Amino acid sequence: MARWQPDAPGRLAAAALDLFEEQGYESTTVIEIAQRAGLTKSTFFRYFPDKREVLFGGGTVTDLLVEGITSAPPTAGALDAVAYALDALGRTFFTGDRREFSGRRQAVLDAHTELREREALKRIDLTASMIEALGRRGVPDLDARVAAQLGTLVWEIAHDRWIRADRGEDFGALARQALAEVRGADALR
Amino acid sequence: MARWQPDAPGRLAAAALDLFEEQGYESTTVIEIAQRAGLTKSTFFRYFPDKREVLFGGGTVTDLLVEGITSAPPTAGALDAVAYALDALGRTFFTGDRREFSGRRQAVLDAHTELREREALKRIDLTASMIEALGRRGVPDLDARVAAQLGTLVWEIAHDRWIRADRGEDFGALARQALAEVRGADALR
Repeated sequence: MARWQPDAPGRLAAAALDLFEEQGYESTTVIEIAQRAGLTKSTFFRYFPDKREVLFGGGTVTDLLVEGITSAPPTAGALDAVAYALDALGRTFFTGDRREFSGRRQAVLDAHTELREREALKRIDLTASMIEALGRRGVPDLDARVAAQLGTLVWEIAHDRWIRADRGEDFGALARQALAEVRGADALR
Repeated sequence: MARWQPDAPGRLAAAALDLFEEQGYESTTVIEIAQRAGLTKSTFFRYFPDKREVLFGGGTVTDLLVEGITSAPPTAGALDAVAYALDALGRTFFTGDRREFSGRRQAVLDAHTELREREALKRIDLTASMIEALGRRGVPDLDARVAAQLGTLVWEIAHDRWIRADRGEDFGALARQALAEVRGADALR
């Protein structure tokens, strides 16, 4: 029974999103999500501690961003290292085939305070991971905090435009554009 | 019975903080908090929807920041308007007599995921309120977002230093200093 299931977390997230849209977040149970995904409740709990977590696929984005910052060219400044990481994220995670899912997911998050809270905390943890990764590159703490804070804003702007992009612009290009806009903001003069 | 209670939300927050420290957040009930404050459960629920909310005193900080941004001199740029608001906050809310409470409160928040989540969402709502208030001053959206994002960082740094300030430095002075540091960060070059 406990055999390996290919992409179980992805199937659970997709099933959960369908059910949240069809019958609401509150009235959907973990058992229903597992059944819809063709899996068991215990498989669900192997990947997620609770229902609230199912749309926050276990740290993948954080890992990719940290990896991107770490592997940015040694000469890159703090904000450039973040830009490099966002670009990598666009190539490996926020790809065209994930765009529709990401847009539907965001709409469900936006509509539920419980999920907005979880998302807000994930955002803070993501920022903290970026600060740490920049620190390991030798970036002084204050610079790392400023770069991570602006990087988070760039990410938000780019993600928001990406899920609405009607010409299918790719995430990396949108992130580069948003970064240029943020860097040019009058507020920084 | 339903007579007016002077500073009921403040008394409930103080009682809750004492109890959370004494016996833990999880094992404290709303009834215990109300009793410790010399109030009733129904008075508690007049001010707070649930136990989780009792340490987030109903939007006062947001109101003060928005008011500060609104009343900043018309010539002030986006980030200066935020600085003006932080200064006002230091004069009217983060005063010396609140410092010890704020430090104890932060320690309890940091130790509980549920409370960290609520705090993270409050932070996002606070940033959104700052963006709106800047927008009403005619600041373009992108500038407002950058200023609010950096303003939030300045606030975090200043608050963190303030609750640890062993020479009793005031919040406003710490916020001005943090703002100067953030503005001078290499990451913005």
